[in-house]
Amino acid sequence: MGDIKRVAVLGSTGSIGRQTLEVISAHPRRFRIIGLAAGKNLDLLTRQISQFKPGLIHFQDEKAPPASAEYEFLSLEEMASHPEVDIVVIATSGKWGLKPTLAAVRAGKRIALANKESLVMAGELIIAEARRSGARILPVDSEHSAIWQCLEGEKEKPARIILTASGGPFYHYSPAKLNKVTVEQALKHPSWRMGKKVTIDSATLMNKGLEVIEARWLFDMPLDSISVLVHPQSIIHSMVEFSDGSVKAQLGCPDMRLPIQYALSYPERLPNPELPRLDWGGIKELTFAPPDFNSFPCLKLAIEAGRRGGTYPAVLCGADEVAVELFLSGRIKFTDIARLVEPALEGHKATAHPTLEAILAADNWAREEVKRLAGGDNR
Amino acid sequence: MGDIKRVAVLGSTGSIGRQTLEVISAHPRRFRIIGLAAGKNLDLLTRQISQFKPGLIHFQDEKAPPASAEYEFLSLEEMASHPEVDIVVIATSGKWGLKPTLAAVRAGKRIALANKESLVMAGELIIAEARRSGARILPVDSEHSAIWQCLEGEKEKPARIILTASGGPFYHYSPAKLNKVTVEQALKHPSWRMGKKVTIDSATLMNKGLEVIEARWLFDMPLDSISVLVHPQSIIHSMVEFSDGSVKAQLGCPDMRLPIQYALSYPERLPNPELPRLDWGGIKELTFAPPDFNSFPCLKLAIEAGRRGGTYPAVLCGADEVAVELFLSGRIKFTDIARLVEPALEGHKATAHPTLEAILAADNWAREEVKRLAGGDNR
Repeated sequence: MGDIKRVAVLGSTGSIGRQTLEVISAHPRRFRIIGLAAGKNLDLLTRQISQFKPGLIHFQDEKAPPASAEYEFLSLEEMASHPEVDIVVIATSGKWGLKPTLAAVRAGKRIALANKESLVMAGELIIAEARRSGARILPVDSEHSAIWQCLEGEKEKPARIILTASGGPFYHYSPAKLNKVTVEQALKHPSWRMGKKVTIDSATLMNKGLEVIEARWLFDMPLDSISVLVHPQSIIHSMVEFSDGSVKAQLGCPDMRLPIQYALSYPERLPNPELPRLDWGGIKELTFAPPDFNSFPCLKLAIEAGRRGGTYPAVLCGADEVAVELFLSGRIKFTDIARLVEPALEGHKATAHPTLEAILAADNWAREEVKRLAGGDNR
Repeated sequence: MGDIKRVAVLGSTGSIGRQTLEVISAHPRRFRIIGLAAGKNLDLLTRQISQFKPGLIHFQDEKAPPASAEYEFLSLEEMASHPEVDIVVIATSGKWGLKPTLAAVRAGKRIALANKESLVMAGELIIAEARRSGARILPVDSEHSAIWQCLEGEKEKPARIILTASGGPFYHYSPAKLNKVTVEQALKHPSWRMGKKVTIDSATLMNKGLEVIEARWLFDMPLDSISVLVHPQSIIHSMVEFSDGSVKAQLGCPDMRLPIQYALSYPERLPNPELPRLDWGGIKELTFAPPDFNSFPCLKLAIEAGRRGGTYPAVLCGADEVAVELFLSGRIKFTDIARLVEPALEGHKATAHPTLEAILAADNWAREEVKRLAGGDNR
């Protein structure tokens, strides 16, 4: 069974962070929380601190939690690379995950990575550093966890990765209908409960495009060997095809606690009665369809950015984040998200094999560019 | 890549045997046929001998192939345990597979096992011998190959095995309609091309019941942790559920050459452009339903025989084989197959942990019993 693993959760008050703490609470003999980091929700962080009693704390907002002799106050990077931490769960959203991921990678940690942007923006850099340090990056996304589970024990790379996509709440919508989508509608995902940004990205299929780029780095696969298949039931979480034509799939209820637990417990699996089981009596059919690139241009934009590489994926992330914010605050239409990301990508002067600085500069440029394109009143 | 593996194919003129030779022909640098054994089809065996030039030959019928200085004439058991053979493919049908399987197991061979009856009749004996000798039994059935592929790299036993079943050509037939089924209808399987016996067993679902018993031995699982799920498209070949609720499935076109090749090439996979690929553009849906134990009582009988253990599964096999022969020769109705197997099982006086002799005696008794039950004119 092995020792108790000491875990730091970065982004502990978000959706993945809270579910990580649920999983860890179910296995008190296997995991101990020694670090908690949050952005804005001081109330919840304070409750988490009193429940888990971690020694290491980070809080992003000005008003930090009250100083205490019982814990040390650290930056995200310090926590991610702290010598007492065995597993770093990176569940911070957006580009805030990038620097701590790099810090954890350089410290050779085991990293349960729920933050997409790190690998999308800086995959080449992160993977190179991980090779050097021996860090192990374990995906927490349900799709990448599925692929990883299907690859366990296989002696060779797959011929093809098939990322499944629920299709989002607007599957089968015409472009005209998509034009009128409200924020409220876009925040209702049919199968997954997630944070706002990723829920909107799921509705535009940008999220699936980011996952294609992420898969490219996690599994060292050419981008054109990764395809997307719409599967509205979200039961098959992704598939892998091998050189002999055999396909392996991982299936489960849409519940993030399973991929979270697997990333923590790997290579073991832990019995956990709290995790739901597929009920085959209730599953009548699994359906499949190709993605509609015309209605969901963000998917095409993301794949193209991934294909071009360099700083393009950073521009994609930065532009998308600002565009989604503009949509959430009611200032642009749902279909404007792609309409803002596309010219940002087209106007970008890219750098190949970028440094971290070049990546962050590209992200910054893209944010300003989208604000400029959207009209003057944003800062 | 390793050396050339020397292969003996027992049952080379049957459906699995011929497909095995196709696979081997596609990989001349990996496999060499050094033994061929057939039952009745001397013409085909003669052609196979001239194509593959094996050194070891077996033929069951009286008129053996012409003696030749180029090959040695052996019994099935001698071939299965011959020191020059690396891999024994056991594709003989029915109880004829049992003794050569045991011989190969005792000789510590790698065995690609396509014969169901060996493990169904004598699973306890064979698995015990394999533990002793270090023989490795690799399943060739598509369902068991699927389970095995899903278990590769996993550190623990699954919580549950889900064997998928096409449902056969009479899926959704009422008992009244099943009463009138003709031999011709029963020989038309919707998705697989196979020999006659196994095609009829697929139509009665007896085949799925035999597979449950086989899975029990191959994967050392309690019978009640193995369930059957009807999946008419035969794309998901079987599934495994783990202690954390994660499910893995293996998918592929219904083509036996894939599981045959995997059993030969394991732990590697070999690229083979002749093997078909799943075309997700053409797969609209995968559907599922519980099996109908009332319309297909053979499935229930088989699972019950497996649960009772001892010599019951041997009685099941012997009784079924004779009943299927009676159906194929037009002497009984389709629904009479179960009606003959059931009283044979009920009338049997079982032995627990039987020897090979007790198993063969039970099989023999069951054959005679079914002939007796069916009426006097059979011998």
